Amino acid sequence: MLAPGSTIGVLGGGQLARMLALAGARLGLKTHVYAPGAEEPAFDVCAARSVAAYDDYVALDAFAKSVDVITYEFENVPAETADFLDARKPVRPNPRVLAVTQDRLVEKQFVQGLGIATAGFADVPDAGALARAVAKLGRPSILKTRRFGYDGKGQAAIRDGGDIGAIFRGLGGAPCILESFVDFAREISVVAARGLDGEFRAYDICENTHEHHILARTTVPARISPETAAKAVECARAITLSADYVGVIAVEMFVVGAGSDETLIVNEIAPRVHNSGHWTLDGALTSQFEQHVRAVAGWPLGSPRRHGRVVMRNLIGEAVEAFAEIAHEDGACLHLYGKKENRAGRKMGHVTYVEAE
Amino acid sequence: MLAPGSTIGVLGGGQLARMLALAGARLGLKTHVYAPGAEEPAFDVCAARSVAAYDDYVALDAFAKSVDVITYEFENVPAETADFLDARKPVRPNPRVLAVTQDRLVEKQFVQGLGIATAGFADVPDAGALARAVAKLGRPSILKTRRFGYDGKGQAAIRDGGDIGAIFRGLGGAPCILESFVDFAREISVVAARGLDGEFRAYDICENTHEHHILARTTVPARISPETAAKAVECARAITLSADYVGVIAVEMFVVGAGSDETLIVNEIAPRVHNSGHWTLDGALTSQFEQHVRAVAGWPLGSPRRHGRVVMRNLIGEAVEAFAEIAHEDGACLHLYGKKENRAGRKMGHVTYVEAE
Repeated sequence: MLAPGSTIGVLGGGQLARMLALAGARLGLKTHVYAPGAEEPAFDVCAARSVAAYDDYVALDAFAKSVDVITYEFENVPAETADFLDARKPVRPNPRVLAVTQDRLVEKQFVQGLGIATAGFADVPDAGALARAVAKLGRPSILKTRRFGYDGKGQAAIRDGGDIGAIFRGLGGAPCILESFVDFAREISVVAARGLDGEFRAYDICENTHEHHILARTTVPARISPETAAKAVECARAITLSADYVGVIAVEMFVVGAGSDETLIVNEIAPRVHNSGHWTLDGALTSQFEQHVRAVAGWPLGSPRRHGRVVMRNLIGEAVEAFAEIAHEDGACLHLYGKKENRAGRKMGHVTYVEAE
Repeated sequence: MLAPGSTIGVLGGGQLARMLALAGARLGLKTHVYAPGAEEPAFDVCAARSVAAYDDYVALDAFAKSVDVITYEFENVPAETADFLDARKPVRPNPRVLAVTQDRLVEKQFVQGLGIATAGFADVPDAGALARAVAKLGRPSILKTRRFGYDGKGQAAIRDGGDIGAIFRGLGGAPCILESFVDFAREISVVAARGLDGEFRAYDICENTHEHHILARTTVPARISPETAAKAVECARAITLSADYVGVIAVEMFVVGAGSDETLIVNEIAPRVHNSGHWTLDGALTSQFEQHVRAVAGWPLGSPRRHGRVVMRNLIGEAVEAFAEIAHEDGACLHLYGKKENRAGRKMGHVTYVEAE
């Protein structure tokens, strides 16, 4: 259990790092943020900053020396960076988790290996393999790059009549995975945490709505049966146990069917705090950010108890221009990330509504 | 209404400034903290720092140039400092509020002038006046320095047989006020805010317990009648209206009598966020810190709605050494202020418990 006054190192300086730093400060812990850009949202709220590339080993070494534990706000930390740091200070969640979650194919195989359902998938190393994969999984299906995809980037639908060669080239010719199309009833996520002592605690299940492949809205609790909710939590628990995971994790799932026919398909694992858990800042006793800090600092986990029914809405791109109207809404809990430049599709803030149950 | 990305200047770098900075960051506002000490709790979480004395006018001028509005975490900001800054950028609450609340005599006269009850009091400019004041107010009574008192510092009880000359000299011979002893049933505080647009919103009434003259525990709601609660809020509203107040205010009061005989006596005004409002971080939709930032930034006020019954306990001096046990308590919301040095009587953190009603 790190003593108050210790320093958490965070790789990445976006809004997730910013909210981690704010949560650490509540517990008397300092944050050292390491990021390549000079103007990062997290830099305004942390005790120390490193502006350096992820392959600057001199800067990484100095960073490691200045902190007590290291975590990250994004899963695309290069493996070499994670291993270099882990040789110096504990990196949590551990770098093996990054290796799994950076690669959609490895991630799917890992999840299936635990006996948990995923969409059908096939390895697509090249254009020739794509034809065989489409023959196996049918159309519609979704082609995704194995690495570096997020918010709908690095993916394309394979529909009837589509030229699959052109679609493969459109993703840059990178190694891909083809996934079956899932006709889901809802999208949910389990935001949970595992402590250094192995304790596991999950928030109530989040129901998510995406627009243009970006999370638009989260409602808690999700409209699913208690049995399905319990199964979803068990999937997340099994994943964290198998990965010897420490920190907050988000497991995105599809709910297929309804009522007693509800089944779950794991879609994606985020080894970090997650947008669908932002509601916990206002709607739960312990925020996901504090929960993550507690876990990586070796503290006991906090209570995930909800204050009521919650809706979280993302403020993306020009939606943030309504901040003044939102600030006037009675009961709206507004969060802005301090980003200087607004762009279409950019997450600029969010707003949470908590209604007593 | 200050735009996101604007900077709030804060005089003072203690835990109140720290929690103001954290609250400002939620809204996308930066904080520039100005304080004389090099190691201040707020320095770890703010976008800019000035380490300078409160009479360093070169530093104050540069500070004023770098911010959009100025506030403070303590009422003993020198009048010259406040006026110098107010000529450059808006100081909120306004400096006239400081002039009133820095001086116990002026404060009592101000409150009485609004038709609000205070303890009996008498001006004690010198030892001779003390004898006349004791003859008027009787014993026991309490001698307090007019200025610079807090947490029981700068005050002494006048009891039967006490040598009043020695007691006066014991307070340094400074100008004093003698106050009647109040045999109160409970101590309460109203934590409220007034916006730049004149809107007024109060949190539910706090019931406070002091130990060794320092706040030990706050329970919300206070065990008083709805009528007394409404009267308490009206006192706070009248004070803010009369002072053209902008920001969070705390008004400490004594409740005398019980049931339908409950009456209120205003004891002290704090022109700032207040220890008895710390519970709002975990127990209300909008924390007092965000509420203060909203007010001084010209934003609409947020909702003060409570999540449930709340108890806040201060961690003073060695009590903070139990942080690990507290972190293990289910549902305990722990806050540590990042102070390096622990001393007897020093506020090191607090813990809040929220119980659904």
